[in-house]
Amino acid sequence: MSNEQNEQIVLASRPEGMPNEENFRYETVETNRPDEGQVLLKTLYLSVDPYMRGRMSDAKSYVAPFQIDEPLNGTVVAEVIESRSEQLEVGDKVTGFLEWKKFNVADGHTVRKIDDKIAPISAYLSVLGLTGLTAYFGLYDIGEPKEGETVVVSGAAGAVGTIAGQLAKLKGCRVVGIAGSDDKIDYIVNELGFDAGLNYKKSDNLQKELEEACPNGVDVYFDNVGGEISDAVMNLLNTHARIPLCGAISSYNRTDGDLGPRVQTKLIKTRAKIQGFVLNDYQDRFQEGTEFLAQYVQNDQLKYEETIVEGFESVTDAFFGLFQGTNLGKQLVKVADPS
Amino acid sequence: MSNEQNEQIVLASRPEGMPNEENFRYETVETNRPDEGQVLLKTLYLSVDPYMRGRMSDAKSYVAPFQIDEPLNGTVVAEVIESRSEQLEVGDKVTGFLEWKKFNVADGHTVRKIDDKIAPISAYLSVLGLTGLTAYFGLYDIGEPKEGETVVVSGAAGAVGTIAGQLAKLKGCRVVGIAGSDDKIDYIVNELGFDAGLNYKKSDNLQKELEEACPNGVDVYFDNVGGEISDAVMNLLNTHARIPLCGAISSYNRTDGDLGPRVQTKLIKTRAKIQGFVLNDYQDRFQEGTEFLAQYVQNDQLKYEETIVEGFESVTDAFFGLFQGTNLGKQLVKVADPS
Repeated sequence: MSNEQNEQIVLASRPEGMPNEENFRYETVETNRPDEGQVLLKTLYLSVDPYMRGRMSDAKSYVAPFQIDEPLNGTVVAEVIESRSEQLEVGDKVTGFLEWKKFNVADGHTVRKIDDKIAPISAYLSVLGLTGLTAYFGLYDIGEPKEGETVVVSGAAGAVGTIAGQLAKLKGCRVVGIAGSDDKIDYIVNELGFDAGLNYKKSDNLQKELEEACPNGVDVYFDNVGGEISDAVMNLLNTHARIPLCGAISSYNRTDGDLGPRVQTKLIKTRAKIQGFVLNDYQDRFQEGTEFLAQYVQNDQLKYEETIVEGFESVTDAFFGLFQGTNLGKQLVKVADPS
Repeated sequence: MSNEQNEQIVLASRPEGMPNEENFRYETVETNRPDEGQVLLKTLYLSVDPYMRGRMSDAKSYVAPFQIDEPLNGTVVAEVIESRSEQLEVGDKVTGFLEWKKFNVADGHTVRKIDDKIAPISAYLSVLGLTGLTAYFGLYDIGEPKEGETVVVSGAAGAVGTIAGQLAKLKGCRVVGIAGSDDKIDYIVNELGFDAGLNYKKSDNLQKELEEACPNGVDVYFDNVGGEISDAVMNLLNTHARIPLCGAISSYNRTDGDLGPRVQTKLIKTRAKIQGFVLNDYQDRFQEGTEFLAQYVQNDQLKYEETIVEGFESVTDAFFGLFQGTNLGKQLVKVADPS
């Protein structure tokens, strides 16, 4: 392994609007050696996520921006191929925040060993990873859905949306999903058990269709998208509605100021709450969340989908695809097979 | 008293945009007689409030709309001039939700006797009434200001804003008020002890002035106004900022759709919370709130201002004035002297 070449993806320039190939650069570099307490990790699966777009800008946000000419990073499932850490053995599978490289060197305590008996290892980047936990904390802690309430989920066929919708069903809610293709609607309604689904790309009156799908108004709106879709949902809020703001993917690449109807009057009339959140805020409760999700994954009450493309060279295309809505469930890249 | 003529103000038509004289009509009617359990009340002070504008429209809201050709209503301080209720005696001063009439008949249990030893009776329509309680619950329950934090109050010289700002000072916060005249700024800074004040009508760069007034960002934004002022404050939110939405007076008379920058991305980046509220939601805690406020009024740590115009015929002009920002503190109308 010692002299094997490594590959990495760096941020070549900050995107203006929609990211494209010129913003990234694939590079061949030397593989680092693990020091005492460290491990050498082979990347097996790598996660691409919409929130990364925010880190590509140089703006103040909840995570530091990526640096130009530096490797990007995100959550990865990897295999220990050399260990100088007492906590990990060669062959162990781990997950953690690692650079977009074929091989990473990391301190043993910064990655978490995963159990491939509960679920396939890729699941630790989807339903049992950041996206599942995001749905769990956002929906249950901020949304607080109660039996019989109506829950609307935008980005409903995405990695977080599919889990959020199913978690709302587990609470006995009416769940309406908004997504961007008939296939996605078919999936969330017929595979995941959502009560209704709206294809916003085919709708010529989303407001009216939403009203029909939510005859009792909206109590919880799990918002992944922002923009015009959220404008429409905001008109249907019930008294004391709760809106966990998980993402605003429709806004991330906008350069026009993202103008829409102001929300203040609607929120006063309904005494509703909009609250942004990020998963980092719940770090001390990850174990609780993972255990909750794992039990429903194991008894098949929580289904999840992964869109997996193969090859390290596909990472940037997979990332671009997030903004075209090509993925169903969690978008992953399979970089290598386990040894 | 029995045959004395009464006067009332009815809603003649629903305002489009800014309300004007054509939307109201003064009428002379017979004074009703109290039945068993009822009292006849002489209106002493009457409160005009921005929230009433919402009730003049025929839209779904947290209180039922006013009806065309029916008297308007709101909070009133009145004197019992005839009593068939065991709870009240002639001469008692009461407050309650009553019609815009010189004389009202009400069930004895629907009005609350007030104590004129704690404060002048008009205070029960201001600092010890709906506006004081609104500031108390909105700021403390939703805003949760902590020592050393920065609290921005819009509509800062208004009835609610003046109390909200002082309550934030009581918690040891840096308090920045936004208002629409130099006199108002002078009042909130030099009389009430706000740390800084911005006259948005004289500012040619409110964003920049706000940044200078809030060098550590904004932790709590007590929002009375909505619109462009709130857009500017939203750009300065700190992580986990809280925004109690008390009013959106800048939007109430707009007919243009009230477009502005969408808030979703900002709220996600800061994990901030915006929450609408109305005082009704806290009805079972009014006693707690009134007692809290009264103690600070009595020891002069909570100052309040009332703009009082005289005469029942001034009610509609006083209401119009709310939207021109002519009032300092609570706008009241003195209808009659106590007997």
